[in-house]
Amino acid sequence: MFQKQKRHSELPPIRQTAEEFTVVDGESYLDEIFKSDMGISRSFSRFQLSHEEYEENYGRVIRGLLATGKHKFFVAVDKYGRYLGHVWVCLKIDTVDFVPSAYIYDIETLFPGIGIGSTLIERAEEWARKMGTMKISLRVDVNNPARKWYSEKGYSERAIIMEKLL
Amino acid sequence: MFQKQKRHSELPPIRQTAEEFTVVDGESYLDEIFKSDMGISRSFSRFQLSHEEYEENYGRVIRGLLATGKHKFFVAVDKYGRYLGHVWVCLKIDTVDFVPSAYIYDIETLFPGIGIGSTLIERAEEWARKMGTMKISLRVDVNNPARKWYSEKGYSERAIIMEKLL
Repeated sequence: MFQKQKRHSELPPIRQTAEEFTVVDGESYLDEIFKSDMGISRSFSRFQLSHEEYEENYGRVIRGLLATGKHKFFVAVDKYGRYLGHVWVCLKIDTVDFVPSAYIYDIETLFPGIGIGSTLIERAEEWARKMGTMKISLRVDVNNPARKWYSEKGYSERAIIMEKLL
Repeated sequence: MFQKQKRHSELPPIRQTAEEFTVVDGESYLDEIFKSDMGISRSFSRFQLSHEEYEENYGRVIRGLLATGKHKFFVAVDKYGRYLGHVWVCLKIDTVDFVPSAYIYDIETLFPGIGIGSTLIERAEEWARKMGTMKISLRVDVNNPARKWYSEKGYSERAIIMEKLL
């Protein structure tokens, strides 16, 4: 009797294999990245949108962001190549400092606390530095506990997004 | 003897005529708007740039912003049509709430304290509301005293821009 090659369903649960993650180029994982992000991002919206409306607007936002700047994706994967998290970084001229800058548009991990986010953000910074940018920025909601995490990573608070309902 | 029509140099100093301002469509004042803004914006940059580098990057940023969304400019003028201040507002889908939103990219006045800024921001909000947007947002540096002014106008703090030098 020969051992058959494991089918996908026979792989160990992803939670068990997540700790031995590696980070790879994310360009071939875009479908998975945006599927994962679309679900998570919805929880940040303060408005009630139908599923169709949300999907359409989400698509327009992503296409709009991708239309400007130079983009890079990194993905954390387990040893079976399964998606564990990603970072999306974009280079453009900063609208306040007017120098080449990097923006982290998105950073997410399925399993917090095992270093995936830290590795992804370091990889994004390393890439941005290599590309000649002078700073890296991101946006975080005022009540998001991630503010503290970014602060520990050396990020300081530069500006406030203020808003008013119409 | 007939009174000759006043030449431009014979107009009263703009400071004296500023208080009786009116707000008009800004599209025919774009040169003046960007000339004024380019000087003011430079003071917000934390980087040392040569004049040429700054001008080039400023132009790229402005063209990049103008390439997306629907834009509207309002200008405050004195009774001689002289520029006193402006607001630049842009409509697009918000990247966090995924609803049609307005962004105040820029609001400036040559003479603070006489109601020019208040009138401009109200006009921008009124236009955005009429265009069907659900909220209006802006970015302000953490140390900018304008934070208090925006807060008095009904703007609340939604998100933080964090950054790190590379």
